[in-house]
This record gives sequence, structure tokens and C-alpha cells, in this order.
Amino acid sequence: MTPPHPTVVVLDADPPPRLGRLTGRARIVRTDAAHLAERLPGADVLLVWDVASQAVREAWPGGGPRPRWVHTASTGVDHLLCPELVASDTVVTTARGIFEQPVAEYVAALVLAAAKDLPRTLAAQRERSWRPRETRPVAGTYACVVGSGPVGRAVTRTLKALGMTTALVGRVPRTGVHGPDDLDRLLSRADWVISAAPLTERTYRMFDTHRFNVMQPSAFFVNVGRGALVDEDALAHALSRRWIAGAALDVFAAEPLPPDSPLWELPGLLVSPHMSGGTVGLRDELAAQFVELYDRWAAGRPLPNVVDKTRGYVPGH
Amino acid sequence: MTPPHPTVVVLDADPPPRLGRLTGRARIVRTDAAHLAERLPGADVLLVWDVASQAVREAWPGGGPRPRWVHTASTGVDHLLCPELVASDTVVTTARGIFEQPVAEYVAALVLAAAKDLPRTLAAQRERSWRPRETRPVAGTYACVVGSGPVGRAVTRTLKALGMTTALVGRVPRTGVHGPDDLDRLLSRADWVISAAPLTERTYRMFDTHRFNVMQPSAFFVNVGRGALVDEDALAHALSRRWIAGAALDVFAAEPLPPDSPLWELPGLLVSPHMSGGTVGLRDELAAQFVELYDRWAAGRPLPNVVDKTRGYVPGH
Repeated sequence: MTPPHPTVVVLDADPPPRLGRLTGRARIVRTDAAHLAERLPGADVLLVWDVASQAVREAWPGGGPRPRWVHTASTGVDHLLCPELVASDTVVTTARGIFEQPVAEYVAALVLAAAKDLPRTLAAQRERSWRPRETRPVAGTYACVVGSGPVGRAVTRTLKALGMTTALVGRVPRTGVHGPDDLDRLLSRADWVISAAPLTERTYRMFDTHRFNVMQPSAFFVNVGRGALVDEDALAHALSRRWIAGAALDVFAAEPLPPDSPLWELPGLLVSPHMSGGTVGLRDELAAQFVELYDRWAAGRPLPNVVDKTRGYVPGH
Repeated sequence: MTPPHPTVVVLDADPPPRLGRLTGRARIVRTDAAHLAERLPGADVLLVWDVASQAVREAWPGGGPRPRWVHTASTGVDHLLCPELVASDTVVTTARGIFEQPVAEYVAALVLAAAKDLPRTLAAQRERSWRPRETRPVAGTYACVVGSGPVGRAVTRTLKALGMTTALVGRVPRTGVHGPDDLDRLLSRADWVISAAPLTERTYRMFDTHRFNVMQPSAFFVNVGRGALVDEDALAHALSRRWIAGAALDVFAAEPLPPDSPLWELPGLLVSPHMSGGTVGLRDELAAQFVELYDRWAAGRPLPNVVDKTRGYVPGH
């Protein structure tokens, strides 16, 4: 008699993951957010495919057995972690390794678009207006990258490849990484400030009035981490008072950004819809990564990309 | 008795070059295009500061002595060279070394903006519309850079730094440079085609119906060389038939691009006003470079950046 196949509950999204390779090796149960709570007790594994949902935080507390392993198709885990999950034995893994290069390229696109004034060029084109301007060089400028995880490090590598000088800031100072004590000094010198930190209690709204105040009037701020890293009111204030030259947000405290948000029309702010990591073929990569981790898990081998649930991210090098 | 100072005629533009360091060592005579012809016989040196003007080609033929040295504050010399200047003993030098890095960054900005679909993101922002899309990765894609001079080589270096594979095409095949015979084959495989060639008889309208036809439907075309490298009607046709995915032109057959040009509203075309090389501080760099060359010339030392007038560009490595 063979043991039953493990049950993998998938918190689904459209399009669903291609998990065909698991046929005959796992029982796949798809669920939406509304039915997650009733599926959890029967789950051996939970795959969080809908990474925009807060359903896990809401469904996890409460009675009954819980899956031994939760995998999220994202880099961050702030949408998952509730005290009960943190205190449990459940292993949480992430899609580390998939999003780093796309996000780094997206940051480079935003930095270069700002330096070369592309938004105003597109506006002038709509007006059939020939208005050459002098633009900013990128090589030789100085970027402060906040968040020393794989995304922050990939961003740093890409900006360095463009000839920029970079400083990387993390929670703990170490070789090549500044600690939080250096942050204000680095922000005050940066031409570019890139937010790529995980969202934790320590980083919640770390970009506040004080932080925008210490930046240079010529500085450009980019957030590709999590929306709640930024006090959006403080950013709006800073932009309207020209404390900084401009900003690009790919992530927001509330997503989708509501149609009536003043951020849509804030002068100097580029709004993009949380798409920095989303390149063509990405979903297949994410599904293939989960299948690979499933095979390790089913064979009793140790999993990579395991989150330190107390810190709120996968500890790095 | 000291000899009189050499006369430097400046074909002027606004703002004029800062040549204060030449005070007491040269007689500076500013002129506009209309009066250039009458200034030429008295000129020892001609500084072409207004590089958008065709005045030299028009004023040079005709009687009287001509300056022994012409320096242009540009990379290209197509706005200068007339048969009489080519046949003369006059030395022509360029601003080689100044524009390469800015143009390479501008190309990277256009490539990344296209890959990451920034124009549509800006349009969606104007409509307060949250529309995440999958975008294209840049690393691992393939760029064909046409023009193996310093600009083309700088573009190639920058795209390689972003993880792209590159092929460089020049007039003569040599190590690291493909010859014209390889061009169609390379174009047929390229994700990105970057035009950065000098404008000569050989390159005039080299990007024609045939060339756009061999490109892939997913290809994106960028011209930062000279407008007349491209048959603009053929490009319009190729874009409207979706032979290629999109294009960005920074240079045009007629500049400024006339307000009634259909190019302004061609779907898939990004129009920018010949600004790829124009970074903040550039004019001071150009003036300082001329002063440095003047010192060499006045001392009888050989000049760098000398144009091969028959070929139409500064021969490279």
C-alpha cells in the first residue's frame, strides 16, 4: 500500500501555475481567498500563487492542522506572516532567484528615463514640439540602494555596470554593506535613492519626512520594494516642496492604487503598477521553481530560500 | 615684433562657447551663417559651434584663402564636407571623446524604456489606470550596432554591461567588427538594431525597405547617428505594417522635425529632438576641448581627431 499523495493547496490567481509535472505525485487543490481557511487543515503544502492577496494572514490563525510548508511566488513575505505562522514549525520559502534581474533592469530603466528626461520627451512628442534639452549623465553619479538582499544586490550590480558609484544599506553592517547608522549620511549625498528592502516592522515607512528632507534637491527616489516602506504623504509633501527632484513608485501602500489617489497626478512622480519583476516567461519560471522545490521536499531533502520568519526575509550572504 | 594672433572665426550658436582662455592668444571673430562666406578669407581657424547649420558647405566653395584648420563641436562631419573642402589641405577635426558616453547612455535609456514598456505606463498613469503587464528582459537579448566608430563602440560596451549580446558592424571587417556583408544576417536575428554610423555616400538611407523587411517582427530600431541614414518613409511603412515592433529616432532627415511631419504620431515611434549627446556641462567640455586643440595647433604639434575627409569620419582603431 502506497501512502497517499501529499495535498498541495494552491491559493490561485489568473492564469494558474502550470503544475502538470506534479501529476501523479501530488494532489493539487485550487482555492480562492474566500475558501482558503477551510482548505488549510487538509493541506500538506500551501502554494501562494496569488501574491497580491492577504488571505494567508487572515486564514492562518484559528483551529486545525496547518501545512508544513508554505511557498510564495514572490520575493517578499509580508503578505503571509502573522504571529501564528511565525511561531509555528511551518517552513516558508520564497521565489528568490527569479525576480532579481528583472527588477534590477526595471530600476535601470527608471533611472535612465529620469536622467534622460524621457517623460517630458514623450509629452513634447504629443505636442509635436521640438524641444532639445540638456540631460543628466548617469556614469559617475551616486546611488544609495536600501535593502541588501538579492534584489538590492542585483540593482547595485546593474547600476555599477552603468558606471555609477553605489552604496548598499542593510540591517546589519558587513563587508560591502552599510548599516542603518550610515543611512542618513548616504541619503544626503545620493543622486539616486533606490528602495528595495523587505517590509518588516523595522522598515515600515522608513522613507518618511525626515528621510526625504535629508536627500538632495537633485535626488531621484525609486521604490521597487514594498509600498509601505514609504510614507506616501511625506513623499507627496517632499515632491510638492521640491525637496527632491522626482520619484518613481512601482509599489504602493494600497494596490491597485485607487483611481482617486492623488499620487496619480503628483508632479514629478512616475507611477507604475507593481510590474518591475514581471517579465515574459516569469510565471513558467515560478511554477518550475515550485516543482523543483516540491521534489526536494517530497524526497525529504532540505529546501533552499527558507525565510527567517522572525526577521521577515531569507537571510543572505 | 611679435606676429599677429591667429584669427579664429566662430560659426556661432546660442549660448556661445566660453573661449576666455584664448584671450591674448587668438583673435576671436564671431559670425552667423549669413556672414560666414565673407569671414572665411581672413580666418586661420574655423570653429563650427553651430553644428546644426549647413553654412560651411554653402560658404566654403568660392574664392579667396581658406582657414588651415576647421574644428567642429560634433562627432559627425556631414554638415561640413563639400568637394572643395575635401580636396583642400585644410585639416578637419571633431569633438571625438565627448559625446560617446552620453549617447551610449541615451541608447540604453531608449532600449530599457522600450523593453519595460514605459511609454504605455506613462499613458496609463494619465488615465489613472492600473494595468500591470509582462515586460521584456534585456539581459540575454541580442543587439546589432551599426557603426564601429567611438559612438558605436561605446553603445556596444554599455549594452554588454546590461547583459546583452552584441554584434558591431562597420565599413571594413576586422577583429570584433563585422563587415557590410554580414549586415542582413545580423539584422534578421537582432532584438535591437542601433544605428550609430557616420553619414556618408555609402550609408545614406542604408536603413531602407529591404533592411526593415529582414528585421524580426519583435525588433526595435534606434537611430542616434544621422537622420539621413534612414529612409523615413520606409520606416513609417515598416511600423504601420508591423514589420518591426517599434523604433526611436533621435535624428531626422530634416531638423527640427517639421510640426506637420507624420513621424510625430506614427504608432510605435518615439521621437526625441536630437538630444542623445547633450548632457549638462557638455558645452563647457566642448569649449575646453577646442582650447586644448588650439594650443597644440598654435604650437605646431599634431592634432588628434583628424577626419579622413575622403571617408567622412575620423579613422578608428
